[in-house]
Amino acid sequence: MTVINPRRGPRRRHVLEGLAAGAVLVPSARATEAPPAIPSWMQAQGADVNAHPYGQPAAFEAEVVRERMKSRTLTAGASFTPLQHLHGTITPNGLFYERDHGGVPTIGPAAYRLLVDGMVDRPMIFTLSDLKRLPAVSARHFMECSGNSGTEWTKPTGRTVQETHGLLSCSEWTGTKLEIVLGIAGVKPGAGWCVAEGGDAAALDRSIPLEHALKIGAMLAYAQNGEALRPEQGYPVRLVLPGFEGNTNIKWLRHLELRRGPAMSKEETAYYTELLPDGKAEQFNFVMRAKSVITYPSGSQKLDGTGFYEISGLAWSGSGRIKAVDVSVDGGKTWQPATLQGPIEPICLTRFRLPWRWNGGSAVLQSRAVDETGYVQPTLKSLVGQYGLHAHYHNNAIQSWQVETSGDVINVHA
Amino acid sequence: MTVINPRRGPRRRHVLEGLAAGAVLVPSARATEAPPAIPSWMQAQGADVNAHPYGQPAAFEAEVVRERMKSRTLTAGASFTPLQHLHGTITPNGLFYERDHGGVPTIGPAAYRLLVDGMVDRPMIFTLSDLKRLPAVSARHFMECSGNSGTEWTKPTGRTVQETHGLLSCSEWTGTKLEIVLGIAGVKPGAGWCVAEGGDAAALDRSIPLEHALKIGAMLAYAQNGEALRPEQGYPVRLVLPGFEGNTNIKWLRHLELRRGPAMSKEETAYYTELLPDGKAEQFNFVMRAKSVITYPSGSQKLDGTGFYEISGLAWSGSGRIKAVDVSVDGGKTWQPATLQGPIEPICLTRFRLPWRWNGGSAVLQSRAVDETGYVQPTLKSLVGQYGLHAHYHNNAIQSWQVETSGDVINVHA
Repeated sequence: MTVINPRRGPRRRHVLEGLAAGAVLVPSARATEAPPAIPSWMQAQGADVNAHPYGQPAAFEAEVVRERMKSRTLTAGASFTPLQHLHGTITPNGLFYERDHGGVPTIGPAAYRLLVDGMVDRPMIFTLSDLKRLPAVSARHFMECSGNSGTEWTKPTGRTVQETHGLLSCSEWTGTKLEIVLGIAGVKPGAGWCVAEGGDAAALDRSIPLEHALKIGAMLAYAQNGEALRPEQGYPVRLVLPGFEGNTNIKWLRHLELRRGPAMSKEETAYYTELLPDGKAEQFNFVMRAKSVITYPSGSQKLDGTGFYEISGLAWSGSGRIKAVDVSVDGGKTWQPATLQGPIEPICLTRFRLPWRWNGGSAVLQSRAVDETGYVQPTLKSLVGQYGLHAHYHNNAIQSWQVETSGDVINVHA
Repeated sequence: MTVINPRRGPRRRHVLEGLAAGAVLVPSARATEAPPAIPSWMQAQGADVNAHPYGQPAAFEAEVVRERMKSRTLTAGASFTPLQHLHGTITPNGLFYERDHGGVPTIGPAAYRLLVDGMVDRPMIFTLSDLKRLPAVSARHFMECSGNSGTEWTKPTGRTVQETHGLLSCSEWTGTKLEIVLGIAGVKPGAGWCVAEGGDAAALDRSIPLEHALKIGAMLAYAQNGEALRPEQGYPVRLVLPGFEGNTNIKWLRHLELRRGPAMSKEETAYYTELLPDGKAEQFNFVMRAKSVITYPSGSQKLDGTGFYEISGLAWSGSGRIKAVDVSVDGGKTWQPATLQGPIEPICLTRFRLPWRWNGGSAVLQSRAVDETGYVQPTLKSLVGQYGLHAHYHNNAIQSWQVETSGDVINVHA
């Protein structure tokens, strides 16, 4: 910022008097400039809003897009949310991460059907209108792929927080509760699991423990951030299991089958299991553990000179509310409590912030989340000690970003 | 929904056993059908997500768009949010209402400047990078044009809730607090007002009472629902004054001038004042009073047969949290308390819901909000008694929707 001195013309001066946080912004090397003349964009009528009855981002934000994982097929893969460019906690629908196993099916709302059968009193078929006519609830919840940060187990791989943590997003979801739909069909005694199947080319199916799913408020969602689900999020209906790994939140939901036990489907045997050091695999590891990451400054960003910065990031837990986030700027030697942006909601992204003065030296930035159960986000070393080097899913380790003396920020294991 | 009887083939049966709300869905006239065969969209790979690095709504949702007010010029007017199609409380950025007085200026982030001068110790110019480097806050707040429902003063005019109440939206905003920017410039004793000017062709300016603005947490916002502001929302920076009439939340914010008194600009003298019965005008009527509206069922919708419906709508107040919403289905003779969807946040849209059984007769649906100050949303009759028939802004009267025996819903004054 530039201080204008009417007598001597503009000169540089940077202060942050009155800043409640007590941080102080010091002079940067920015050139001085005169007060602005009437800019060209005020001298003519602006653009016509009619051109966009459904609005679009500014052209200047063209780089703020999802990044697609390289995949063996054109129509199966994953798209990562650009967390380094986002603020607050809501993910705009156009940037919500997605993982698809057979591309995105095109399902007309009139053609949609949900079959509920198996151990029920009344096998039933619901149309979309049927589901929308039932009582609704809304809730804000994060969703995270359990493969998020899987590339970071053995060495720092992602260049940006989009690449290391971008299989994470957060929405306000609206739909009808699973318990209402199951209440209509009538669940038979002994039915302990519900197999949910998607209407995509992969017919992706997962077995859901019924009691646990009802306890967390499982929802058949048809809306996200106010509007209809996006096609890649399961239009017209997806299962939302707050806090469960993303893969279980079945999209394009087509079938709920009530059973005594799980189906042992491909996605819960060949995939989405943890290979342990003894060669056995941990299965049905549903709940996403507490985790956090600094989004600014983060990988591939560059600090513009020494002085005041606000470190900012996201924390979340599949087990409830975030209780605290501690931040270290010295690779974990010392920690300071960050400020949490309220309201803090259960199973929802929580934004944390900490004022920091960069002195120009090398620094390693880390964040560590604690959730309301008292669970503390582990170091990578501790996680590797528990799961070994062949695990892939559920990497919730503390992330380290190294600020180099040049101001460049890089992904490191520290 | 259809009950499947494996012995006798599908037959119709509708129940809502186990529904916690106690409401019961009765049979509708929907035709029976067989369990779904494998649909065509599961028999081939789906669409490629790569086509949309910034995602778009489903093609089937093409009617869910903003509606543009007819205007005398192509590039000044207003666009209304389709509240009848929305769920929950967040408005997706592509559907956020807008009012523009000179079209939408195209302002590059590098070219953006904010001048802070007048009664300050240090007149200053801020770049966008300067503002983003300051401490940030996030908060969810509604925004409403004080002209919202202005067409409804004397007779029911809007056909839909989009037309009657669509100059209303709600976002999570992120930015730096006005008090931080003013703290840097240093406010001189005696400065009681801040004139905010937009960088559009209209150079729209409004005078803001300083103490009041700081008390409500006035913000210089650069992000909305996580991403950068949309062009028509003031990209790259707008003023956000929680609870104040929309017009004061200056977009494309260019200039803050600290003064002893207000500027008496066009927008606070010729417009945005209330013409009272005695010919005088009420000025600086900043705070949006408590208001609510039923969005389902609402104007131009049609009920599909008798039986269970969930009445749903939105309530909000510029003075704080919504405390209660009462709903009437008999034109205000009797009222029932609606369920409020939590968490209830201050100066934020609050979704309310009430189970209802339609018996097929004519019914007049109304909602009435009460905020935490105890203020009760008035009837139109009471509002007209206070302001007469020549007022236009700040119509927060109770809205009536009449359900006809055909199931059609129309806008009435009741």
